[in-house]
Amino acid sequence: MAVPSLEGLIEANAAFYKAFEGLDIHAFRQLNMASKGDVCVHPGWRPLSGWADIEHSWVGIFEHTTYMQIVPSEVNAQLHGEVGWISCFENIYSFVGVERMLGQVVATNIFKWTEDGWKLVLHHGSPVLQPEEDAP
Amino acid sequence: MAVPSLEGLIEANAAFYKAFEGLDIHAFRQLNMASKGDVCVHPGWRPLSGWADIEHSWVGIFEHTTYMQIVPSEVNAQLHGEVGWISCFENIYSFVGVERMLGQVVATNIFKWTEDGWKLVLHHGSPVLQPEEDAP
Repeated sequence: MAVPSLEGLIEANAAFYKAFEGLDIHAFRQLNMASKGDVCVHPGWRPLSGWADIEHSWVGIFEHTTYMQIVPSEVNAQLHGEVGWISCFENIYSFVGVERMLGQVVATNIFKWTEDGWKLVLHHGSPVLQPEEDAP
Repeated sequence: MAVPSLEGLIEANAAFYKAFEGLDIHAFRQLNMASKGDVCVHPGWRPLSGWADIEHSWVGIFEHTTYMQIVPSEVNAQLHGEVGWISCFENIYSFVGVERMLGQVVATNIFKWTEDGWKLVLHHGSPVLQPEEDAP
Protein backbone atom coordinates (compact mmCIF):
# COMPACT_ATOMS: atom_id res chain seq x y z
CA MET A 1 0.00 0.00 0.00
CA ALA A 2 1.13 3.52 -0.76
CA VAL A 3 2.45 5.65 2.07
CA PRO A 4 2.30 9.45 2.40
CA SER A 5 5.27 11.08 0.64
CA LEU A 6 6.28 14.57 -0.41
CA GLU A 7 6.39 13.44 -4.07
CA GLY A 8 2.81 12.12 -3.83
CA LEU A 9 1.71 15.33 -2.13
CA ILE A 10 3.20 17.48 -4.92
CA GLU A 11 1.49 15.22 -7.49
CA ALA A 12 -1.86 15.62 -5.70
CA ASN A 13 -1.41 19.39 -5.78
CA ALA A 14 -0.61 19.26 -9.51
CA ALA A 15 -3.68 17.05 -10.11
CA PHE A 16 -5.82 19.63 -8.26
CA TYR A 17 -4.68 22.36 -10.69
CA LYS A 18 -5.16 20.04 -13.72
CA ALA A 19 -8.79 19.42 -12.67
CA PHE A 20 -9.16 23.16 -11.94
CA GLU A 21 -7.94 24.27 -15.37
CA GLY A 22 -9.85 21.38 -17.00
CA LEU A 23 -13.03 22.82 -15.42
CA ASP A 24 -13.79 19.20 -14.52
CA ILE A 25 -15.99 19.11 -11.41
CA HIS A 26 -16.01 15.28 -11.31
CA ALA A 27 -12.21 14.94 -11.27
CA PHE A 28 -12.18 17.88 -8.89
CA ARG A 29 -14.53 16.21 -6.40
CA GLN A 30 -12.31 13.08 -6.37
CA LEU A 31 -9.34 15.18 -5.22
CA ASN A 32 -11.25 16.79 -2.35
CA MET A 33 -12.12 15.21 0.97
CA ALA A 34 -15.65 16.46 0.13
CA SER A 35 -16.58 16.56 3.82
CA LYS A 36 -18.22 18.93 6.29
CA GLY A 37 -14.79 19.97 7.59
CA ASP A 38 -13.55 21.28 4.22
CA VAL A 39 -12.68 24.97 3.97
CA CYS A 40 -12.23 27.05 0.81
CA VAL A 41 -11.25 30.71 0.45
CA HIS A 42 -11.43 32.08 -3.09
CA PRO A 43 -9.33 35.22 -3.65
CA GLY A 44 -11.03 38.10 -1.84
CA TRP A 45 -14.00 35.98 -0.71
CA ARG A 46 -15.08 35.11 2.80
CA PRO A 47 -14.32 31.46 3.76
CA LEU A 48 -16.73 28.73 2.70
CA SER A 49 -17.05 25.68 4.97
CA GLY A 50 -18.43 22.28 4.11
CA TRP A 51 -18.25 20.59 0.73
CA ALA A 52 -21.83 21.48 -0.33
CA ASP A 53 -21.15 25.24 -0.41
CA ILE A 54 -17.61 24.74 -1.72
CA GLU A 55 -18.74 22.54 -4.64
CA HIS A 56 -21.50 25.04 -5.47
CA SER A 57 -18.89 27.82 -5.71
CA TRP A 58 -16.59 25.79 -8.00
CA VAL A 59 -19.48 24.78 -10.26
CA GLY A 60 -20.27 28.50 -10.62
CA ILE A 61 -16.64 29.38 -11.38
CA PHE A 62 -16.33 26.55 -13.92
CA GLU A 63 -19.61 27.53 -15.64
CA HIS A 64 -18.41 31.10 -16.09
CA THR A 65 -14.98 30.15 -17.47
CA THR A 66 -14.28 29.08 -21.06
CA TYR A 67 -10.49 28.74 -20.98
CA MET A 68 -7.91 28.76 -18.24
CA GLN A 69 -4.39 27.43 -17.88
CA ILE A 70 -2.91 27.18 -14.40
CA VAL A 71 0.80 26.67 -13.81
CA PRO A 72 1.78 26.26 -10.16
CA SER A 73 5.20 27.69 -9.23
CA GLU A 74 7.40 28.13 -6.14
CA VAL A 75 5.79 24.96 -4.75
CA ASN A 76 6.78 24.60 -1.09
CA ALA A 77 5.56 21.24 0.25
CA GLN A 78 5.61 20.12 3.90
CA LEU A 79 4.55 16.84 5.43
CA HIS A 80 3.93 15.74 9.01
CA GLY A 81 2.36 12.35 9.64
CA GLU A 82 -0.80 12.06 7.55
CA VAL A 83 -1.16 15.78 6.83
CA GLY A 84 0.58 17.67 4.04
CA TRP A 85 0.46 21.35 3.17
CA ILE A 86 1.59 23.31 0.17
CA SER A 87 2.29 26.95 -0.42
CA CYS A 88 2.51 27.97 -4.08
CA PHE A 89 1.67 30.51 -6.72
CA GLU A 90 -1.13 29.84 -9.17
CA ASN A 91 -0.09 31.43 -12.47
CA ILE A 92 -3.44 31.71 -14.23
CA TYR A 93 -3.43 32.35 -17.98
CA SER A 94 -6.68 33.33 -19.65
CA PHE A 95 -7.80 35.30 -22.68
CA VAL A 96 -9.29 38.77 -22.62
CA GLY A 97 -10.37 39.19 -26.24
CA VAL A 98 -7.41 37.83 -28.21
CA GLU A 99 -4.85 38.80 -25.59
CA ARG A 100 -3.42 36.15 -23.25
CA MET A 101 -3.34 37.53 -19.72
CA LEU A 102 -1.50 36.33 -16.62
CA GLY A 103 -2.99 36.62 -13.15
CA GLN A 104 -1.19 35.49 -9.99
CA VAL A 105 -2.77 34.03 -6.87
CA VAL A 106 -0.93 32.83 -3.76
CA ALA A 107 -2.37 29.61 -2.37
CA THR A 108 -2.21 27.42 0.72
CA ASN A 109 -3.52 23.89 0.20
CA ILE A 110 -3.88 21.35 3.04
CA PHE A 111 -4.23 17.65 2.22
CA LYS A 112 -5.14 14.70 4.45
CA TRP A 113 -3.82 11.22 3.73
CA THR A 114 -6.56 8.59 3.18
CA GLU A 115 -6.81 5.00 1.89
CA ASP A 116 -7.55 6.64 -1.46
CA GLY A 117 -4.47 8.90 -1.37
CA TRP A 118 -4.16 12.62 -0.61
CA LYS A 119 -7.42 14.58 -0.35
CA LEU A 120 -7.68 18.37 -0.22
CA VAL A 121 -9.32 19.65 2.98
CA LEU A 122 -8.44 23.36 2.80
CA HIS A 123 -7.78 25.69 -0.12
CA HIS A 124 -6.94 29.34 0.51
CA GLY A 125 -6.27 31.48 -2.55
CA SER A 126 -5.57 35.19 -2.25
CA PRO A 127 -4.58 38.10 -4.45
CA VAL A 128 -0.94 39.20 -4.73
CA LEU A 129 -0.91 42.98 -4.46
CA GLN A 130 2.84 43.38 -3.95
CA PRO A 131 4.85 43.93 -7.13
CA GLU A 132 7.56 41.32 -7.74
CA GLU A 133 10.40 43.91 -7.52
CA ASP A 134 9.16 45.00 -4.09
CA ALA A 135 9.60 41.59 -2.43
CA PRO A 136 11.05 42.03 1.08
CA MET B 1 2.15 14.86 29.30
CA ALA B 2 -0.24 17.00 27.32
CA VAL B 3 -1.73 15.55 24.15
CA PRO B 4 -2.86 17.43 21.04
CA SER B 5 -6.47 18.62 21.41
CA LEU B 6 -8.82 20.97 19.60
CA GLU B 7 -9.14 23.10 22.75
CA GLY B 8 -5.36 23.46 23.01
CA LEU B 9 -5.17 24.30 19.31
CA ILE B 10 -7.75 27.07 19.68
CA GLU B 11 -5.84 28.40 22.71
CA ALA B 12 -2.58 28.43 20.71
CA ASN B 13 -4.34 30.40 17.97
CA ALA B 14 -5.67 32.89 20.54
CA ALA B 15 -2.17 33.19 22.07
CA PHE B 16 -0.79 33.95 18.59
CA TYR B 17 -3.20 36.89 18.25
CA LYS B 18 -2.46 38.10 21.80
CA ALA B 19 1.27 38.23 21.00
CA PHE B 20 0.44 39.84 17.65
CA GLU B 21 -1.66 42.65 19.15
CA GLY B 22 0.83 42.97 22.05
CA LEU B 23 3.52 43.66 19.40
CA ASP B 24 5.64 41.26 21.46
CA ILE B 25 8.24 39.62 19.21
CA HIS B 26 9.62 37.45 22.06
CA ALA B 27 6.22 35.91 22.94
CA PHE B 28 5.59 35.70 19.22
CA ARG B 29 8.76 33.70 18.53
CA GLN B 30 7.83 31.20 21.26
CA LEU B 31 4.55 30.44 19.46
CA ASN B 32 6.23 29.80 16.12
CA MET B 33 8.15 26.72 15.08
CA ALA B 34 10.82 29.26 14.05
CA SER B 35 12.28 26.85 11.51
CA LYS B 36 13.39 26.83 7.88
CA GLY B 37 10.09 25.22 6.87
CA ASP B 38 7.91 28.07 8.18
CA VAL B 39 5.77 29.97 5.69
CA CYS B 40 4.09 33.36 6.15
CA VAL B 41 1.85 35.29 3.77
CA HIS B 42 0.93 38.80 4.92
CA PRO B 43 -2.20 40.22 3.23
CA GLY B 44 -1.32 41.00 -0.38
CA TRP B 45 2.34 40.02 0.02
CA ARG B 46 4.25 37.23 -1.71
CA PRO B 47 4.98 34.24 0.60
CA LEU B 48 7.98 34.41 2.93
CA SER B 49 9.72 31.13 3.78
CA GLY B 50 12.04 30.39 6.66
CA TRP B 51 11.89 31.97 10.09
CA ALA B 52 14.70 34.54 9.46
CA ASP B 53 12.74 36.40 6.77
CA ILE B 54 9.44 35.90 8.58
CA GLU B 55 10.73 37.30 11.89
CA HIS B 56 12.25 40.26 10.04
CA SER B 57 8.84 41.06 8.51
CA TRP B 58 7.04 40.88 11.89
CA VAL B 59 9.67 43.07 13.57
CA GLY B 60 9.04 45.65 10.84
CA ILE B 61 5.25 45.43 11.27
CA PHE B 62 5.51 45.72 15.07
CA GLU B 63 7.90 48.70 14.82
CA HIS B 64 5.46 50.59 12.60
CA THR B 65 2.40 49.91 14.78
CA THR B 66 1.53 51.83 17.96
CA TYR B 67 -1.83 50.25 18.82
CA MET B 68 -3.74 47.28 17.54
CA GLN B 69 -6.47 45.04 18.93
CA ILE B 70 -7.14 41.75 17.18
CA VAL B 71 -10.27 39.72 17.84
CA PRO B 72 -10.42 36.37 16.03
CA SER B 73 -13.92 35.26 14.94
CA GLU B 74 -15.56 32.37 13.06
CA VAL B 75 -12.73 30.16 14.33
CA ASN B 76 -12.89 26.82 12.47
CA ALA B 77 -10.36 24.38 13.99
CA GLN B 78 -9.41 20.98 12.57
CA LEU B 79 -7.00 18.40 13.91
CA HIS B 80 -5.43 15.28 12.39
CA GLY B 81 -2.68 13.50 14.30
CA GLU B 82 -0.04 16.04 15.29
CA VAL B 83 -1.13 18.74 12.87
CA GLY B 84 -3.87 21.29 13.47
CA TRP B 85 -5.19 24.01 11.20
CA ILE B 86 -7.44 26.97 11.78
CA SER B 87 -9.46 29.17 9.50
CA CYS B 88 -10.65 32.43 11.07
CA PHE B 89 -11.21 36.13 10.63
CA GLU B 90 -8.82 38.60 12.20
CA ASN B 91 -10.89 41.62 13.24
CA ILE B 92 -8.22 44.27 13.54
CA TYR B 93 -9.09 47.47 15.42
CA SER B 94 -6.73 50.40 15.15
CA PHE B 95 -6.91 54.18 15.36
CA VAL B 96 -6.75 56.55 12.43
CA GLY B 97 -6.54 59.92 14.18
CA VAL B 98 -9.12 59.63 16.97
CA GLU B 99 -11.37 57.26 15.02
CA ARG B 100 -11.34 53.55 15.85
CA MET B 101 -11.29 51.58 12.57
CA LEU B 102 -12.02 47.91 11.87
CA GLY B 103 -10.15 45.96 9.21
CA GLN B 104 -10.88 42.32 8.41
CA VAL B 105 -8.38 39.72 7.28
CA VAL B 106 -9.13 36.05 6.56
CA ALA B 107 -6.43 33.73 7.90
CA THR B 108 -5.29 30.14 7.66
CA ASN B 109 -2.93 29.05 10.45
CA ILE B 110 -1.23 25.63 10.52
CA PHE B 111 0.25 24.34 13.79
CA LYS B 112 2.51 21.35 14.50
CA TRP B 113 2.39 19.54 17.82
CA THR B 114 5.72 19.47 19.68
CA GLU B 115 6.99 18.57 23.18
CA ASP B 116 6.52 22.27 23.90
CA GLY B 117 2.91 22.39 22.65
CA TRP B 118 1.46 23.72 19.40
CA LYS B 119 3.83 25.73 17.20
CA LEU B 120 2.77 27.80 14.19
CA VAL B 121 4.36 26.63 10.93
CA LEU B 122 2.23 28.49 8.37
CA HIS B 123 0.30 31.76 8.55
CA HIS B 124 -1.63 33.00 5.52
CA GLY B 125 -3.52 36.26 5.93
CA SER B 126 -5.42 37.80 3.03
CA PRO B 127 -7.72 40.74 2.36
CA VAL B 128 -11.50 40.29 2.31
CA LEU B 129 -12.79 42.14 -0.73
CA GLN B 130 -16.31 40.67 -0.73
CA PRO B 131 -18.93 42.68 1.13
CA GLU B 132 -20.64 40.77 3.94
CA GLU B 133 -24.09 41.01 2.28
CA ASP B 134 -22.72 39.45 -0.89
CA ALA B 135 -21.63 36.17 0.76
CA PRO B 136 -22.43 33.26 -1.57
